[in-house]
Amino acid sequence: MDFKEKYQEYLKSVEERLYNYIPQTEPLTINEPFNYIIRGGGKRIRPVLTMIGCGAAGGDPMEAIDCGAAIEILHNFTLVHDDIMDESPLRRGRETIHQKWDDATAILTGDVMVGYAYDLLPTNDKNKFAGKIFKTFNKGLIEVCEGQAYDMQFNCNKNVSVDDYILMIDKKTAFLLKTAVKIGAYYANANDKTVQILENVIHNFGIAFQFQDDMLDMTAEQEKLGKRIGQDIIEGKKTFLVIKSKELAKEKEDIDLVNKFYENDGLPADEVPKFIELVKKLGVFEISQKIIDQRLEMCYDDLNKLEQNYHVEMIKWLINSLNKRKF
Amino acid sequence: MDFKEKYQEYLKSVEERLYNYIPQTEPLTINEPFNYIIRGGGKRIRPVLTMIGCGAAGGDPMEAIDCGAAIEILHNFTLVHDDIMDESPLRRGRETIHQKWDDATAILTGDVMVGYAYDLLPTNDKNKFAGKIFKTFNKGLIEVCEGQAYDMQFNCNKNVSVDDYILMIDKKTAFLLKTAVKIGAYYANANDKTVQILENVIHNFGIAFQFQDDMLDMTAEQEKLGKRIGQDIIEGKKTFLVIKSKELAKEKEDIDLVNKFYENDGLPADEVPKFIELVKKLGVFEISQKIIDQRLEMCYDDLNKLEQNYHVEMIKWLINSLNKRKF
Repeated sequence: MDFKEKYQEYLKSVEERLYNYIPQTEPLTINEPFNYIIRGGGKRIRPVLTMIGCGAAGGDPMEAIDCGAAIEILHNFTLVHDDIMDESPLRRGRETIHQKWDDATAILTGDVMVGYAYDLLPTNDKNKFAGKIFKTFNKGLIEVCEGQAYDMQFNCNKNVSVDDYILMIDKKTAFLLKTAVKIGAYYANANDKTVQILENVIHNFGIAFQFQDDMLDMTAEQEKLGKRIGQDIIEGKKTFLVIKSKELAKEKEDIDLVNKFYENDGLPADEVPKFIELVKKLGVFEISQKIIDQRLEMCYDDLNKLEQNYHVEMIKWLINSLNKRKF
Repeated sequence: MDFKEKYQEYLKSVEERLYNYIPQTEPLTINEPFNYIIRGGGKRIRPVLTMIGCGAAGGDPMEAIDCGAAIEILHNFTLVHDDIMDESPLRRGRETIHQKWDDATAILTGDVMVGYAYDLLPTNDKNKFAGKIFKTFNKGLIEVCEGQAYDMQFNCNKNVSVDDYILMIDKKTAFLLKTAVKIGAYYANANDKTVQILENVIHNFGIAFQFQDDMLDMTAEQEKLGKRIGQDIIEGKKTFLVIKSKELAKEKEDIDLVNKFYENDGLPADEVPKFIELVKKLGVFEISQKIIDQRLEMCYDDLNKLEQNYHVEMIKWLINSLNKRKF
């Protein structure tokens, strides 16, 4: 079976598991939005990574499905709460929970989701590496909150460096991807060296993934994005593209535009095209793409250190498909 | 050592453990409010109950201290998020987190606290009943969220019955107390019968505890309460005292006041004394006290079914001290 079909098979399995698992009962004030967010689609990359990680370490991916579902619920919990904090009205082309219901509902729905996520993790009688999986999951939750905290701090900080930005996205994006692959590998009793290599791979993949996401915000087609083009610019997010443009802008008009972004914490919607033009003119998209390429190169190098099997190959395919404009 | 001293000893131990455990490092945007809420005092009844539960089941209470600290962090997480949802400005006589910082900070601080709470639970290499403790903790988190959901639903419901109210406070208040004592007992490898009895005891204790809390809102001395007298009336909380007063009010003036409470979701501060007078006149404080007495009687009956030891006696003392106006 080719990797794309296999990915779809894992995705379908994990969705089926999720839909059977999420409560349809009272109290509907929280269980209805819980169903709404989980049934809202998404790439399901984290749960699939858990299953692939299990396979890459020599286990049966289907056995790690509950761990994958746990990670997917945890990820969606972060989206629900981040959307309140960021005041985002849309997510995956639909209203966010706090927008459709209210803040209190969104807070509480997120909270109960954490309980349900944990309850999917194995106990020791089910898998004897339950303790390692549990500890990894805890760290995932803590780090992803820290990532969001740094993100919020950046909003008030005019001097965010590229290094600061990478630290933040490591915690906010890459960490949960790493957690996903690690709990899959632990489920299959991977040794520490294998786990470390997989962690490195997904670390670099996660950074590349976020750089890609930031670029898509400025370059994607509206229908495919599921949110407004340039939303990050409007919200004043200091992504790599912004930080680097600030560094490189030399002409007065360009400096003025970047300064306006920094001073007003973003730009009005009608100035978004002008800002995107500037990023393009300064060659920042190319620089960003180069960083993505370098990170992905490091992924391949690390992957080649592992004992090769179908699922290690599948990780390579996954990395390729992220970077499909190039490959 | 008498029970009061022993309680203080356990309280001090668990506070010391908490203060050593909570991170003082970056990101301070969340770790500072995390320290603030945990260092804000409180009765620490939940962690002490975990330690007593461990002792009552024949274990060494000091060994269950991390489980107790986990429960205390989980409890404080619920306070942080509930205070946002209820828009409460004060908690234990100090500003709430969302009031002192902002909503986003309070949401995220609560979230990271859940991760730190879980990370205190034992894994299987530390205690072989880790799985039972973990499952009990998950259920505690889920039920306490459901309790808050029912509480919010009640705010929009004009026809809450006494039974509805008891279901809600069972989840919102009693459940985490039960969780506390159960994880302590599981830590000491209590058999299912012992755990069931302890659960029944703390269930009834929890209901009595909440009834007492509701009464204190109307009857306590301002300085001791740490929040405004009659805050529940102002916020429109449909406690037993309100539901029962609605049922018993017969004179037009009284019915009008109760209806005003229901129609406006609470009363202005200057009508609080009049409402408290009405509750008193209708004899609802006595009815409430009688229910408290009955619940506590059931506690003693159940406790006498257990093998008696120092910590079983300590639970009886704890129940007595709750009801100290009578004893």
